[in-house]
Amino acid sequence: MASQREAAIQYVRKNREKFLTSLKEFLQIPSVSNDPLHSSDIRQAANWMAAQLHSLRMQRVQIYPTMRHPIVYGEYLGVPGAPTVLLYGHYDVQPAEPLDQWKTSPFDPTIRGENLYARGVSDMKGQILALLKAVEALSKNGGIPVNLKWLIEGEEEIGSMNLGAFIANHKDLLACDFAFNPDAGMLGEDKPTITYALRGLAYLELRVYGPPTELHSGVFGGVVHNPAIVLAELIAGMHDSQGRVTLPGFYDKVRELTPEERAELARIPSDEKYYLEKTGVPALYGEQGFTPNELTGARPTLDVNGMISGFTGSGTKTIIPAWAMAKISCRLVPDQRPHDVYEQMKRYLEEKAPKTVRWELVEMHGGNPSISERNHPAVQAFAQALETVWGVRPYFKREGGSIPVVSLVQDLLGVESVIGGFGLPDDNFHGPNEKLHLPTWYKGIEALVHFFLNLTELR
Amino acid sequence: MASQREAAIQYVRKNREKFLTSLKEFLQIPSVSNDPLHSSDIRQAANWMAAQLHSLRMQRVQIYPTMRHPIVYGEYLGVPGAPTVLLYGHYDVQPAEPLDQWKTSPFDPTIRGENLYARGVSDMKGQILALLKAVEALSKNGGIPVNLKWLIEGEEEIGSMNLGAFIANHKDLLACDFAFNPDAGMLGEDKPTITYALRGLAYLELRVYGPPTELHSGVFGGVVHNPAIVLAELIAGMHDSQGRVTLPGFYDKVRELTPEERAELARIPSDEKYYLEKTGVPALYGEQGFTPNELTGARPTLDVNGMISGFTGSGTKTIIPAWAMAKISCRLVPDQRPHDVYEQMKRYLEEKAPKTVRWELVEMHGGNPSISERNHPAVQAFAQALETVWGVRPYFKREGGSIPVVSLVQDLLGVESVIGGFGLPDDNFHGPNEKLHLPTWYKGIEALVHFFLNLTELR
Repeated sequence: MASQREAAIQYVRKNREKFLTSLKEFLQIPSVSNDPLHSSDIRQAANWMAAQLHSLRMQRVQIYPTMRHPIVYGEYLGVPGAPTVLLYGHYDVQPAEPLDQWKTSPFDPTIRGENLYARGVSDMKGQILALLKAVEALSKNGGIPVNLKWLIEGEEEIGSMNLGAFIANHKDLLACDFAFNPDAGMLGEDKPTITYALRGLAYLELRVYGPPTELHSGVFGGVVHNPAIVLAELIAGMHDSQGRVTLPGFYDKVRELTPEERAELARIPSDEKYYLEKTGVPALYGEQGFTPNELTGARPTLDVNGMISGFTGSGTKTIIPAWAMAKISCRLVPDQRPHDVYEQMKRYLEEKAPKTVRWELVEMHGGNPSISERNHPAVQAFAQALETVWGVRPYFKREGGSIPVVSLVQDLLGVESVIGGFGLPDDNFHGPNEKLHLPTWYKGIEALVHFFLNLTELR
Repeated sequence: MASQREAAIQYVRKNREKFLTSLKEFLQIPSVSNDPLHSSDIRQAANWMAAQLHSLRMQRVQIYPTMRHPIVYGEYLGVPGAPTVLLYGHYDVQPAEPLDQWKTSPFDPTIRGENLYARGVSDMKGQILALLKAVEALSKNGGIPVNLKWLIEGEEEIGSMNLGAFIANHKDLLACDFAFNPDAGMLGEDKPTITYALRGLAYLELRVYGPPTELHSGVFGGVVHNPAIVLAELIAGMHDSQGRVTLPGFYDKVRELTPEERAELARIPSDEKYYLEKTGVPALYGEQGFTPNELTGARPTLDVNGMISGFTGSGTKTIIPAWAMAKISCRLVPDQRPHDVYEQMKRYLEEKAPKTVRWELVEMHGGNPSISERNHPAVQAFAQALETVWGVRPYFKREGGSIPVVSLVQDLLGVESVIGGFGLPDDNFHGPNEKLHLPTWYKGIEALVHFFLNLTELR
C-alpha cells in the first residue's frame, strides 16, 4: 500500500499543470444559480461535471433534473467491504456583481502571484477539482481503494431548495457510511482545519410601503412618514446597545458554549488582530462577552445584506420614496430554526412598525445549523491525512457559514459529514476577486489521496 | 383698454388647440438636466425656447452658455414708463425614472380625460407656454402693454447652480421692477393661489464605509459592524419621538409662526383628510403641535430621498456590504441656511457615528428659504387677475418646495417675486405620470392676460 500512496502522490505532483488547465475550463462556465439568464450555463456546468465522472470511469453517471437546477450523480462500487463515501459538491456559483470591482473578468480565470482568480474558484469548483484529481491519481496508480458516490448539486448558492427532496427520494442510491464535504476552508495556509459545526441561515426580505407613488419632498415633506426612514428605524431597533439581536425569543434556543468548548475554540490562533486584518474594518463589533471565534462560529447574528429605496443614481432628486426594502439574514446556531426567526421578525414588526406605513415580510430561504461528532473514524482518517501533508495537527473549528446539505445528510441518510476543504479565509468567496491559493490547493489534492487510502485502514 | 382685454381673451379661447400642439412639441424634448446623456436634448430645448421668443418678436434673444446648461434671454422694452417684469422659467425637467410606473411614455404627451400627461408638463413647461401664449394674445390684439424680460434657465431641477453667477454678472440686463415666477401651483382647480413664502433646501449625501470589499456574512458575520445597519442607526437617530429633527442647532434660526399667520394659513381648506387623500398614505406623520399646512409650508423637515447598500437584485446574496449610502435632504424655512444644516449634520455624525466604520458627508446643493411682501402692487394685480377668472379671492400660502431663483432675485436684483402658477397638487411633478389639468391651464392663460393688463393700471 505504501507504494500506491507514493505513486499517487508523485502523479499529483507531475500533473499540476494539467489539473490547473482542467480547473480553468470549469471556471469559464458562468454557472450563476440565482439568475435565470444563466440557466444554459448551469446546464453546461452539469454536463461538464458528468463528463468528468465518465472519464474517471464512474458508473450510473446521470444528470437528474429538479424543479430548478439539475443534480449530477455517479458512483464507483468496486471495493466490496470497503467504506462507501458520499462526495458532496456544488457546481453553481454566486453572482459576480459588482463587476466593476473585479480586477480581471470573473469568468476568465487569471493567475496573479500564487493565486488563481475567478468566481467560484474557492467556493467550490476548486474543491470539486481537488476531489476529481485525487481520485484520478489513485485510479491511475493501483485503483480507487474505497467506494464512492458523487452528489453534485447546482443550487447551493440559492439555498439547495431541491436537494432535500432529491435525497429523500433516493435514499438507497445515496446510502453510504459517511459524507465528505469540502465546502469549508482552512484557518490559514499552514493551518489545516476540520469543521465540526456550521451555522444555519434565515434569509428574509422586509418591504416598507409609504405613499403609492413617490412624492415631491417639498410639497409633502412634513406630513408623510418617509418609508426609507421607517425602514432605517426598524433596522436600527433590531440590535441593542450590547450588540444583541432584539427579536423576541431570538436567543431562547441558542445552545450556550461549555467552558470545555470555549477552551478548545481558544486554541484557534485567529484573534482580534487576525479578524481586523482579514476584514479591513477600522474596529471590530459584536455581541459583548465573546471572542471573535465564538462570535463567528458559535453565536447567531443579524445582518442587512442589501437595502434600497428611492433615487440612488448620481446627482439629486427631491422625492419621498414610495417604498424601501431590506434583505436581512440571520446566521443561526444550534438549536435555532429558520422559520422561528421569521416568526420572531414578524412579531417584532407587528409590535414596532408604525401605522403610517404598510409592510410585508417575505421568508426567502433557510438552513438549519448543525454540529458533528469529532471522534468519528472518518474524521480521524482525514485529520491524519492533513497532518501527513502539513506536518501539524489540524484545528477543529466551528464554521460561520451555512452548508444545508450537512443537516440534510444527517437527517435523511443518518450519516455524519467530514467537513474540510482547501479555501482560505481571504479567498473573498461571494465577493469580487474571489481567489484560490494554488500551493494550498496542490497540497489539498495530496491530502485527499492520503485520506482515501487512510480510510481503507479502517476496515 | 377694455376692448383689448376682450379681444385678447377671445384670442386665447379660439386658439386652445394650437396652444396645446405647441406645448406637446416642447414636451417631446426630454430635457432632463441631471443626466449628461441628455445634454443634446437640453440644447434642443434651449433652441426651441429661443425660437419661441423670436416668433413673439422679442429683442436681444440670446442663448447664454453657462458651466453646464444654457440660459435663454429675450426682452421687449416697447412701453417706456410701463413696469418691467422679469419672467422666470426653466426648460429643464426631472428624470423620468422609474419608467415602468408611467402609463404612457413620459416624453410622448398623452391626453387622458381632462389631463395631459408628460414629464415636465406641470413643472414647468406648461407654465412657460401659458406665459408665451398670454403674451402672444396681447401682442396680436393691440400690443404688449408692459415691458418684459425673459430669463429661462436649464438647471432648476439640479439646483440652479449657475443662475446666481449669471444674474450677478447681468444685473443691468436683468434690471426690472419685479419678477413673475409661475413655478408654484394652486391649492385646487377652484382655488387660485399666490405663494408668499418658499422653503429652502439642503441636500446631502451620507456615505458609510465598512470593510473595503463586501464580505461573506457567514464567515465574518458577528465581528463586523454592517455599514447598512450603521447607516440605518444614524438615520433613525435623526428624528426624536416627537417627529423633530435632532441635528444639533437645527431649529435655532427657525422663524416661529405668529398667531396672525397661523390664522391666515388656517383659511386654506386643505386639512388632514386632504393630505391623506393626496398622498395615499395610511396615516399622516409629522412634528407634533402643527397643522398639515404649517408642517408642509412653515416647518423644516428631514427626508431620505434615496438609500442603497449591498445586494438589491432579486433572490438572495449572503454578504456584509462594503458601504451604504443615503441621499438626505432638509426643507428649510426662514431663516435657516443650507450650509448650516451641512455643518449640523457633520456635528451629529461626529458625535454619533461609531468607530467601527468610516463615513463621508457630501454637500450636494442647496437654496435659501424666502418670504415675500403680500401687499406689493404687482401681487395685488395678479390677485385681481385670478379673482376675475375664477370668481373667488385667491388664497395666500406658503409653499413647501424650493425655488432658488426667488431668493437670488431678491438678493441680487433687489426685487420681489410674484409667485403663482397653474399646476395642481396632484400633478405628480417629479414622480411618474406627471400631468397638467387642461381646463385650469386654459384659465391660467386668461389670468395672465388680465395680469399684464392690470399692471398697466399701476402706472
